[in-house]
Amino acid sequence: MFKEVEAAYERIKETVNSTPVMTASTLDEITDSECFLKCENFQKTGSFKFRGAFNALSQLSLEQKKKGVITHSSGNHAQALALAAKLLGIKAVICMPKNAPSVKVAATRGYGAEIVVCGTQPTDREKTVIPLIERYGYTLIHPSNDLKIISGAGTAAYELIKEVGELDYVFSPVGGGGLLSGTAIATKGLLPSAKVVGVEPENACDAYQSFKAGKIIPVENPNTIADGLRTSLGSNTFGIIREKVDQIITVSEEEIVDAMQFIWERMKLVVEPSGAVSLAGVLSKQMGLESRRVGIIISGGNIDLTGFFAKIRRRIKSSK
Amino acid sequence: MFKEVEAAYERIKETVNSTPVMTASTLDEITDSECFLKCENFQKTGSFKFRGAFNALSQLSLEQKKKGVITHSSGNHAQALALAAKLLGIKAVICMPKNAPSVKVAATRGYGAEIVVCGTQPTDREKTVIPLIERYGYTLIHPSNDLKIISGAGTAAYELIKEVGELDYVFSPVGGGGLLSGTAIATKGLLPSAKVVGVEPENACDAYQSFKAGKIIPVENPNTIADGLRTSLGSNTFGIIREKVDQIITVSEEEIVDAMQFIWERMKLVVEPSGAVSLAGVLSKQMGLESRRVGIIISGGNIDLTGFFAKIRRRIKSSK
Repeated sequence: MFKEVEAAYERIKETVNSTPVMTASTLDEITDSECFLKCENFQKTGSFKFRGAFNALSQLSLEQKKKGVITHSSGNHAQALALAAKLLGIKAVICMPKNAPSVKVAATRGYGAEIVVCGTQPTDREKTVIPLIERYGYTLIHPSNDLKIISGAGTAAYELIKEVGELDYVFSPVGGGGLLSGTAIATKGLLPSAKVVGVEPENACDAYQSFKAGKIIPVENPNTIADGLRTSLGSNTFGIIREKVDQIITVSEEEIVDAMQFIWERMKLVVEPSGAVSLAGVLSKQMGLESRRVGIIISGGNIDLTGFFAKIRRRIKSSK
Repeated sequence: MFKEVEAAYERIKETVNSTPVMTASTLDEITDSECFLKCENFQKTGSFKFRGAFNALSQLSLEQKKKGVITHSSGNHAQALALAAKLLGIKAVICMPKNAPSVKVAATRGYGAEIVVCGTQPTDREKTVIPLIERYGYTLIHPSNDLKIISGAGTAAYELIKEVGELDYVFSPVGGGGLLSGTAIATKGLLPSAKVVGVEPENACDAYQSFKAGKIIPVENPNTIADGLRTSLGSNTFGIIREKVDQIITVSEEEIVDAMQFIWERMKLVVEPSGAVSLAGVLSKQMGLESRRVGIIISGGNIDLTGFFAKIRRRIKSSK
């Protein structure tokens, strides 16, 4: 599938942001390695998801484009698909769980997509989407298990490696597995001896368990701050991960917040909890990274800061 | 003085971070212009101040280096001088007002500097520093009025223009005036017809008033969230600003917070209030920037996030 990642890159490179790779001497000191952060928080719509969404939508037939697309997503894929659809002049319907972060819902609506609210159980999403597809002929663009979504997601690691060259490890977060699958395909295609590590919240460790058991073991309604990683592997992502990923490790909620605080305070980057999970894996020292060159995919930066800024505004008012 | 900026750049370029220039299509749409943000929040120690500090310290005589340096600063210059001194093996003593943000005090101490706490009145700093200089023979490195600090600060705009080329405007925040002076020297040296605009909090508008009156009118203990801009112009910075800056505009506290929220949420950059002031000036639409190419110096990203992350940690604990 490496050829599909290369083709996706050619297809989307003029439209996606070629996001910066950031480094920090403090991070290198702490980890005793050379770390390269691929900052997809700077991607259009604030996450890597735009890569896959634009790749998938730009390959639809004229007929499909006319009828429109539908998906279910807690947020980042929703925004990404909404913007990609807007840019390509396609109607997008997005089914979002009622606990999706309000900032992500508002942004999705802002890109002109139609929102349909559904329940929080994994099966709720399908139950809402299927009747709409039957009625209106929408094309379903699955947030992670779609092969075009996976190829598009893989272009982040592809760009990273094209820019920094040889790497010993590439770390990616894993939720539905689209990013990890794409990362593994791109990495093994360009650097066959590099190791690919998936990092997952302990509280939503279906990929870890599925990888160990050799069969898909989904997780139901997991409780993790990393809201982008609450979904489970699909048939395509599981197959690719089983074949190409070297290891899956888990991190605690505290480790996720610590990594997030490190990135915000020391590297001055706004990343969402899911976006800090791969760095949390590096900082957890479960892998021997000494003197290694380590690529780290920072998946996104969409976090609700309304409360934070409301507090600052109250403080200015009271000090007048 | 443009030659001094060029010389400073040659002197410090191997040590400072060549910080990225960021753009955002949303920002260009809102302002109807092309904006280029020079992101000094990614500079070593989290602000542009490291440029001037390293430039000044690397020109000290052997005798001066042996005796050590002293300064007064609410935070960013303190951290910058502390790290520059550490890298060059020089003792640094920093006089910090008792209301300096605790995260900046801790960072300064972390770089190995000796901290002396003083009062919050403008004169308190001098009163604390002078006896120590008399006793120990320290060299005073003024945070803004020192010509080597000014030349060093100017290298940020110098790098920006070398990277992006022609600009119609360059916006810089103004507190003590070191950054604005350096920015004006660099900009007029490279692009004589570009306009340089200083942006200042309304609540600390000594530079605005001094510029208008043609004489220094200092401000006493101003109340602004932009803690890096509470200081007043000095003799050198006032002279340079009077000669080379085209306009000084002011922004309200609300405008500063709005600009900060825009940079965090939309551009995924952690900037401190002072660091958002130049963007607040652009967003305030006081200048006609339509179809113009606008450089914006984002001065720093040091903000205390302890409370924000403590709240997140409480939330994860309570949801267990």
